[in-house]
Amino acid sequence: MPTSNATAVWEGGLKAGRGHFKAGSASFEGDHSFPTRFEGARGTNPEELIAAAHAACLSMALSAGLEKGGTPATRISTKASCTIDKVGDGFKITKMRLEVRGKVPGLDPGWVRQGGGGGKEGMPGVGRCRETFSSTWTRGSNRKCH
Amino acid sequence: MPTSNATAVWEGGLKAGRGHFKAGSASFEGDHSFPTRFEGARGTNPEELIAAAHAACLSMALSAGLEKGGTPATRISTKASCTIDKVGDGFKITKMRLEVRGKVPGLDPGWVRQGGGGGKEGMPGVGRCRETFSSTWTRGSNRKCH
Repeated sequence: MPTSNATAVWEGGLKAGRGHFKAGSASFEGDHSFPTRFEGARGTNPEELIAAAHAACLSMALSAGLEKGGTPATRISTKASCTIDKVGDGFKITKMRLEVRGKVPGLDPGWVRQGGGGGKEGMPGVGRCRETFSSTWTRGSNRKCH
Repeated sequence: MPTSNATAVWEGGLKAGRGHFKAGSASFEGDHSFPTRFEGARGTNPEELIAAAHAACLSMALSAGLEKGGTPATRISTKASCTIDKVGDGFKITKMRLEVRGKVPGLDPGWVRQGGGGGKEGMPGVGRCRETFSSTWTRGSNRKCH
């Protein structure tokens, strides 16, 4: 199966140094630093990459599940929020919040009540953090299923 | 501690649909599809984002460990390669290969023999996949420690 790669360079010490990552496909790249990772400074960091991966994977997985179930989605949007905390001597991702909005013509409300088809459980790349999951589904122009 | 977020939209079915992800900081974004994720087509995918996160995190963590040990690195570069495989009915990241090159004036070769300071173990966001790790360290202009 496919292997994807990326590179990242860090120059200098932890607090004053600077990092740069780049996708092997050259589709994206970015700069990061101690302030952008741990002090809320404007910019990106590894946790934002993890959030993007989870959001992309979940939207795609839920679309696949809905299509398999006979009610393909028109559009699925996921927002992933990734929290890092100090644990012991190091840092860990302790929480991943996933908020999904989907537009699915003909959607069975029972599918939503049963947890949205289990697409979340099928995600690769999910670590050992605590996850929270919420979803809002629209069947047509004005019917909503929560 | 900080929370980072990203959004991703999927439109259409699994094989013919298309996805787009975007960092909350607006530092990066990209398009992905079934072919770019599973068929080796040119472009990005969630596993490339995971690889970038791990590479960025490991380069930064090793720099922190070396600085703490009294031999700060001038430069650390990591290449991460992430493999996804079909497991049961779904897909999982089954392998993450991490290749590190570091330039560290005054580096203690014992530190390298002992596994490079354990920076890898301290990484947040590492899932349950099999990891392989290799490293090449340069102490100055021409001394190498493998």
